[in-house]
Amino acid sequence: MKITEQDKAFMREAIRIADESVKNGGGPFGAVIVKDGEIIAGRSNSVTLNNDPTAHAEVNTIREACQKLGTFDLSDCVIYTSCEPCPMCLGAIYWAKLRRIYYGNTKKDAAAIGFADDFIYKELDKPISRRSLPFIHLLPQEAISSFKLWDENPDKTEY
Amino acid sequence: MKITEQDKAFMREAIRIADESVKNGGGPFGAVIVKDGEIIAGRSNSVTLNNDPTAHAEVNTIREACQKLGTFDLSDCVIYTSCEPCPMCLGAIYWAKLRRIYYGNTKKDAAAIGFADDFIYKELDKPISRRSLPFIHLLPQEAISSFKLWDENPDKTEY
Repeated sequence: MKITEQDKAFMREAIRIADESVKNGGGPFGAVIVKDGEIIAGRSNSVTLNNDPTAHAEVNTIREACQKLGTFDLSDCVIYTSCEPCPMCLGAIYWAKLRRIYYGNTKKDAAAIGFADDFIYKELDKPISRRSLPFIHLLPQEAISSFKLWDENPDKTEY
Repeated sequence: MKITEQDKAFMREAIRIADESVKNGGGPFGAVIVKDGEIIAGRSNSVTLNNDPTAHAEVNTIREACQKLGTFDLSDCVIYTSCEPCPMCLGAIYWAKLRRIYYGNTKKDAAAIGFADDFIYKELDKPISRRSLPFIHLLPQEAISSFKLWDENPDKTEY
């Protein structure tokens, strides 16, 4: 993948948002989403400012881009993020169907300043029974009812 | 872990929310968060209804619980979810520090009705270079600036 000057400019905007976030009391992460060569959304991490543990830069930026475009499908967009996405954000990027990820810092860099990204990646790699978080399987024979309802619904909106 | 009748009642509420969601045009997933034996938040998947690919049941419920309690730390709470969390939601659960997960359906059940949970788990398991989504490492020597700012800020709120 050839890197262009425009790619660098978009990444620098993500980094600028991250730097500004730290100055405003937020986490040191920023992201922008680009469609057709134009930034359509750019947000920082606001976990502690908004009391929302899901408010990472990438999640916030995906939500903003989707609201602007009126869709849950960003398959015609790419994301530039100042740090390699954590599992939550990477999951969100797959669900949003973003086409490509440009990233600056790595999960090891994030671990070095105290963030749990690398720990969570390792947890997800383990089978359920070996994770530090207890998982309890409960009432699967009842839970399957919602999936049957979904499967039999001819009017569902799939994604 | 001993399963109580109360645990079953909480899971049945998550399943009820999931069933109702399908009837209202949403995805077949529901969750509740419980603190001190009481449900403090319960939400369904609203990805297609809200044009928000991050609006899974667990993420929505975590957001609601955090807003109600005024905190980004749910370490005194547990979550009951009608389906095993996807990587995005499981990441969110780790970030929110939830103490325990009760789940009904599995990621294999979700895959069987067309959801990408299992695919995304497999993608996250792979090294960056082997994922189907292209990852491009860009300007790490500039991106590290935000981490330095964070590291040197004595007033930061860590999480």
